[in-house]
Amino acid sequence: MSDAFSFRLSTTDGAARAGEITTPHGRIATPAFMPVGTQAAMKAVTWRDVRESGAEIVLANTYHLMLRPGAERIAALGGLHAFTQWDGPILTDSGGFQVMSLANLRKVEEDAVTFRSHVDGTPIALSPERAIEIQSLLGSDIAMQLDECLALPSSVPDIERAMQLSLRWAERCKRAFDHARGRALFGIVQGGDIPGLRIESARALADIGFDGYAIGGLAVGEPQQVMLRIVDEVAGHLPADHPRYLMGVGTPEDLLEAVARGMDMFDCVLPTRNGRHGMAFTRFGPINLRNARHADDPRPLDAASRCPAAREFARAYLHHLVRAEETLGAMLLSTINLYYYQDLMRGMRAAITMHRFNDFCAETRQGWAAGDLAPP
Amino acid sequence: MSDAFSFRLSTTDGAARAGEITTPHGRIATPAFMPVGTQAAMKAVTWRDVRESGAEIVLANTYHLMLRPGAERIAALGGLHAFTQWDGPILTDSGGFQVMSLANLRKVEEDAVTFRSHVDGTPIALSPERAIEIQSLLGSDIAMQLDECLALPSSVPDIERAMQLSLRWAERCKRAFDHARGRALFGIVQGGDIPGLRIESARALADIGFDGYAIGGLAVGEPQQVMLRIVDEVAGHLPADHPRYLMGVGTPEDLLEAVARGMDMFDCVLPTRNGRHGMAFTRFGPINLRNARHADDPRPLDAASRCPAAREFARAYLHHLVRAEETLGAMLLSTINLYYYQDLMRGMRAAITMHRFNDFCAETRQGWAAGDLAPP
Repeated sequence: MSDAFSFRLSTTDGAARAGEITTPHGRIATPAFMPVGTQAAMKAVTWRDVRESGAEIVLANTYHLMLRPGAERIAALGGLHAFTQWDGPILTDSGGFQVMSLANLRKVEEDAVTFRSHVDGTPIALSPERAIEIQSLLGSDIAMQLDECLALPSSVPDIERAMQLSLRWAERCKRAFDHARGRALFGIVQGGDIPGLRIESARALADIGFDGYAIGGLAVGEPQQVMLRIVDEVAGHLPADHPRYLMGVGTPEDLLEAVARGMDMFDCVLPTRNGRHGMAFTRFGPINLRNARHADDPRPLDAASRCPAAREFARAYLHHLVRAEETLGAMLLSTINLYYYQDLMRGMRAAITMHRFNDFCAETRQGWAAGDLAPP
Repeated sequence: MSDAFSFRLSTTDGAARAGEITTPHGRIATPAFMPVGTQAAMKAVTWRDVRESGAEIVLANTYHLMLRPGAERIAALGGLHAFTQWDGPILTDSGGFQVMSLANLRKVEEDAVTFRSHVDGTPIALSPERAIEIQSLLGSDIAMQLDECLALPSSVPDIERAMQLSLRWAERCKRAFDHARGRALFGIVQGGDIPGLRIESARALADIGFDGYAIGGLAVGEPQQVMLRIVDEVAGHLPADHPRYLMGVGTPEDLLEAVARGMDMFDCVLPTRNGRHGMAFTRFGPINLRNARHADDPRPLDAASRCPAAREFARAYLHHLVRAEETLGAMLLSTINLYYYQDLMRGMRAAITMHRFNDFCAETRQGWAAGDLAPP
């Protein structure tokens, strides 16, 4: 345990921002990408490889952990850091998003959302106060308020009702939250694809006052343009001296676009999920290793990568592992993708610092557009 | 590439032997355990962890690799070492065992065994000459003769016919084999559970002359006592100045017993297979991490282990990973088991060198019998 949570903005380049977050478990250079260790484990990647990929913070899912192994159990074992042996910063979500997407028989009421566990059917009530208590038991460095997140498209009245409920829950979360041990609490902007509701939500959250501000309820089925328009509208209404977190985003292209609009933090399962499905993110664009064109290709995925697996293994070997359904294929490709995401963020941070963010984006897109190496 | 294959016996303690094998890709202290990377990949373990576990040689399965990605393809990519980036010694089996256990519509004839691939139904003929050619294409350091391996129990006439056929195939394999680049060829003793046939097979193989001698056709369903009786009968008939390899064996207890009877090399899928099923091999005996008694246990599996995962993670965390079906659970437990097997072999080698092998076996069994730590 070291310092309490703080954020320092060091450089801006247009709307893009470079800065640094301090947490009780270490510092995070921003813009930052947080790999997702849903059940207190990164899927098919060791914590050593997560660290070596350059990740400085990871996300864990409150919904999954409250169901199994249970927040009180993790607390008795010393919290998520002791449990996982990941000693860097951890952000936990509130559980709200997964309650909406995974749980059965859910019912949203003023006091709490009630549902049945998708693991064993146990009935559970998750109130704003309980969401905060659980995250405190988990011992995350950054906790999120409980919110109601709707899929898009939804009707305007539904979106407004969920936004207003999320604001009332934001206040209750703030009252329930204890900043002891330097921990931080973020509020979440809701309001669907309606700019006016989004701005109302952002202003009200800033009035309540949080350590950071997230935009939630995007990347839930809407086109990228809709998402970016909302980020455009909202970012300017979020306090500039606090980190801004775009939840559940996204593709490498989404990350460029969102950083360009002033967002600082991101999380997404794409690098590990796509790795498990045979797909590698590279500076040549995404590459499907299942494709037969790799079967005889002795070249590495990217000889200039910082990732040993991307440099050392032949594409033919990765192709074989994917086709043969060897777990090692998922392990290597997930690791390769975690490195790629971190390198993309590192590139953006360096470019912002040098006031050449637009050039960096153009060069990066040029690499993707040029496409993969020609067959040997 | 360095030296040609050779074997040096350094110490004996009773029938137990300590020695060293030299291969073109490095040395192997014996008795040695070879982890099994069936499809040119260790299941759920990176090559780095295989190496750090202490393994000095690995086994790859010719049957699987000839079907996918194909031996000619691997040869074009530079052989198994370049393909996998495992730069230590590799032993390949002949494919015979898996043809018997996995392939469809197989037919054993004098010239070859014909079968259909279990992957895509392709009809394939595997002759002794083709088995040698494939292993040469794969570029393994140690190749195995093609043999016919029967499940036990089988009738005496069947066992004798398969043993005699395996001897004729042994001769053809030796004629076809090219020792270029320092590679070695091992013969395989067959003869089921009939001591007389086993001894006949061993003597005939020694007359043909191989770089090493394996006992095949055990660990195929017979009781441990039957297996050990055969090893007892056969080992003394195998040339003392060549390595002796007991194929497909076994449990830690099997390894103690077989080393006590003069065997030098072993392979088995148990460490990785059981790791995938939530089971850890430890000096306290096997431990089933799925068991609820571990759910709240903050203690590591074995604080004195050389394996970081066995020292650093709480049993409660390993239990959670197994219950939540996280790939990381299989990865960590498989790695823990590979370390345990290597440490067991290391302990046996040291004990033989100090002429206290029997004491070592007694102490090891005492640890297993004392059982796991009491609940906290």
